[in-house]
Amino acid sequence: MADFTHFDEAGNAVMVDVSDKQETERVATAKGRVLMKAETGRLIAERGFKKGDVLTVAQLAGIMGAKKTPDLIPLCHPLALTKVTVDLELAGETAVEITATCKLKGRTGVEMEALTAVSVAALTVYDMCKAVDKEMRITDIRLVSKTGGKSGTFTAAD
Amino acid sequence: MADFTHFDEAGNAVMVDVSDKQETERVATAKGRVLMKAETGRLIAERGFKKGDVLTVAQLAGIMGAKKTPDLIPLCHPLALTKVTVDLELAGETAVEITATCKLKGRTGVEMEALTAVSVAALTVYDMCKAVDKEMRITDIRLVSKTGGKSGTFTAAD
Amino acid sequence: MADFTHFDEAGNAVMVDVSDKQETERVATAKGRVLMKAETGRLIAERGFKKGDVLTVAQLAGIMGAKKTPDLIPLCHPLALTKVTVDLELAGETAVEITATCKLKGRTGVEMEALTAVSVAALTVYDMCKAVDKEMRITDIRLVSKTGGKSGTFTAAD
Amino acid sequence: MADFTHFDEAGNAVMVDVSDKQETERVATAKGRVLMKAETGRLIAERGFKKGDVLTVAQLAGIMGAKKTPDLIPLCHPLALTKVTVDLELAGETAVEITATCKLKGRTGVEMEALTAVSVAALTVYDMCKAVDKEMRITDIRLVSKTGGKSGTFTAAD
Amino acid sequence: MADFTHFDEAGNAVMVDVSDKQETERVATAKGRVLMKAETGRLIAERGFKKGDVLTVAQLAGIMGAKKTPDLIPLCHPLALTKVTVDLELAGETAVEITATCKLKGRTGVEMEALTAVSVAALTVYDMCKAVDKEMRITDIRLVSKTGGKSGTFTAAD
Amino acid sequence: MADFTHFDEAGNAVMVDVSDKQETERVATAKGRVLMKAETGRLIAERGFKKGDVLTVAQLAGIMGAKKTPDLIPLCHPLALTKVTVDLELAGETAVEITATCKLKGRTGVEMEALTAVSVAALTVYDMCKAVDKEMRITDIRLVSKTGGKSGTFTAAD
Repeated sequence: MADFTHFDEAGNAVMVDVSDKQETERVATAKGRVLMKAETGRLIAERGFKKGDVLTVAQLAGIMGAKKTPDLIPLCHPLALTKVTVDLELAGETAVEITATCKLKGRTGVEMEALTAVSVAALTVYDMCKAVDKEMRITDIRLVSKTGGKSGTFTAAD
Repeated sequence: MADFTHFDEAGNAVMVDVSDKQETERVATAKGRVLMKAETGRLIAERGFKKGDVLTVAQLAGIMGAKKTPDLIPLCHPLALTKVTVDLELAGETAVEITATCKLKGRTGVEMEALTAVSVAALTVYDMCKAVDKEMRITDIRLVSKTGGKSGTFTAAD
Repeated sequence: MADFTHFDEAGNAVMVDVSDKQETERVATAKGRVLMKAETGRLIAERGFKKGDVLTVAQLAGIMGAKKTPDLIPLCHPLALTKVTVDLELAGETAVEITATCKLKGRTGVEMEALTAVSVAALTVYDMCKAVDKEMRITDIRLVSKTGGKSGTFTAAD
Repeated sequence: MADFTHFDEAGNAVMVDVSDKQETERVATAKGRVLMKAETGRLIAERGFKKGDVLTVAQLAGIMGAKKTPDLIPLCHPLALTKVTVDLELAGETAVEITATCKLKGRTGVEMEALTAVSVAALTVYDMCKAVDKEMRITDIRLVSKTGGKSGTFTAAD
Repeated sequence: MADFTHFDEAGNAVMVDVSDKQETERVATAKGRVLMKAETGRLIAERGFKKGDVLTVAQLAGIMGAKKTPDLIPLCHPLALTKVTVDLELAGETAVEITATCKLKGRTGVEMEALTAVSVAALTVYDMCKAVDKEMRITDIRLVSKTGGKSGTFTAAD
Repeated sequence: MADFTHFDEAGNAVMVDVSDKQETERVATAKGRVLMKAETGRLIAERGFKKGDVLTVAQLAGIMGAKKTPDLIPLCHPLALTKVTVDLELAGETAVEITATCKLKGRTGVEMEALTAVSVAALTVYDMCKAVDKEMRITDIRLVSKTGGKSGTFTAAD
């Protein structure tokens, strides 16, 4: 039966042993969304044609956030990511859609890196818009696909 | 009219000047939720009576995550937080509810710290349960209240 | 006679005691320059009208770099900066000019933070352009002004 | 024609995909200089024969700085450097010359690590001497050579 | 004759070149102890049956500390650890025994990572108990075994 | 009766609320020792008269380590230390004695910062000497004095 892998028999949390896993190419894509007032979405859209804009700042924060994953998630392995992309776009006036993809030639999956990139990008959107909208919601952060490694390919239903 | 505060007139992103703001007590509370399969929730519940458990690890990750906010969010001020609490509990079998509160005697609000604590705790729940459930969703991360500072008290509608 | 302040009588490097200094407003501005081929400057200029551009990425890196100063410079005090601005602009086709200003209500100056912001922004310009120009030079990083604190106002000659 | 590699077609900044690059030995050497008053150079020289000295502190800061490159430069890959050396020496009384070499068995070059090591060492020289000389300049930070990888060997003209 | 490896001929500290070392499996185990009053040990024991407890917090801190080794120890190589376990247990009423094991497929040993994990776990025990006992002592931090790499297997005498 | 302060009534670990504590001057001094073979002590002593030496590197690592305390110890408050000194000296041929003092104008004590500085300096001594002596022991890390704050002055018995 399925069980958590992050505990040993004595109940101690562990960073699990991946020494004997194969060095394969691993890719993971995650998505998430920031919901906001229409006025906030419009302000982002207007700003988007100027030099500094909310989505560019959040996009960079997401990339840098992916690199911080082992600092943030206690039992994550430190990894030498070989690729990170983060994409943000307005979906109508009331949502920013965020997608992040991480890649690694290594011994463990990179889904946490992709999920962290989305989360940090979303938090940065909130930070940059909070003066005009405190009621934004960060929502639907999820893994959409994952390839490589023993557990094989995962693709989310939606 | 309301506008973003994180840009100067030339369109450059800036860490805004808070030097002349009052040093007051500032408190912010944020909430969020991780949705999961019933089987996952049951495994968390069983584990919860043993020594190491998912919620304890995620709770500590959230507290440490709050301290990392200025590293993660590009335009956030470095702050000397005076209090952080993070609380996680199972809400039925299919959700973990997360609440974080941050406090500061200082010149700027701590809502980003509370939202970051919730996000990092949620990501850690995902990490620890992903071997049994890859379809979890991190959702409804939002500010629920904020006191202190010029903009006064904010309380979310829900 | 003038002497270094970062050593004690025994010759040990120390983080000097600033406990008894006044909490005053301290501001420092630093400048620097990245020299490049005309073709590189032109590519930056063209890119500058699109969404993601070299100068925006470098500008954000500079702001985040300022916050990392106590991590980088062994004897720097950890500080709660109250403002950081970084500005990059093309000066003709062969140079990017960088200016950073940091501010603090505190017990020690912020010139290292401003110089670090300029350095990190300059390194980021190099990183983003190195595929087309490996011979760029980062040059003339210097303090241009400093106010607040016992040593008073400093303004560079040039 | 040459173009920047750090943007995708949509103009988003990306951490470029190096998954398919060869794991080869990569070496990069960078140099830079801190210009100062003759009195400052003399103080460094005198101190240099004692236990704690400016150049030793700056040298260590440079080595540690190389390790922080992916934290500082937004689109740099995290790397497991296999060697870092930093060397500082007085060139007459008015300059400190800094040289850094980084090495990696990996998929991407290490020029940013070498340039960052030089920059952090230079900033540390400034920090340790600023009580006696605020007009120092950090200058001529540049790549002097680079080997390994598809783009082959680069040697700077000077 | 044996000599330090962290200096070059000119006396500069260096991060030594491991590029040509074999990528082998390397494992290191370290131990240490926190001595305390019997009352403190009893409080830890009581707490140990509840949800949050001193030993669980310290155990996680130790795992995360192992990942921070290259940030803390100036000449340590950055490493992609493949496994970290930390175990704390009460030895009678007056001591907590700490054991940490780190593992790597790589070019350099992981004894510093294991020793750092023990140290950070010990410091965390101190932090969490200091309100009731300021006279605790962290003691006997040592390497107990090491395998892999050119220098072969090491096993401590005791 | 004395009890731990780092848990709330529900058993959650918390970063305790210090918002209402007085901003007073707080000083803490910690000590520790690295035990080694006589040959190792002699090598350190010889090296001590040259430019780069074990004790200088460890001393700087200790100062920088003090600044990392809130990153390492989960429930420590982030602090703006106003002074850090670390001193290492050979005590005969078989021990290095380490003393660290930290100072703060703030709301919480700095004993963890002093203990962390000692620990990181000790680990660095180990790292730099491990090629000649794997059996060194880090021992007797303890608080020797503490002033400031509500709990008053503490001085260790020995």
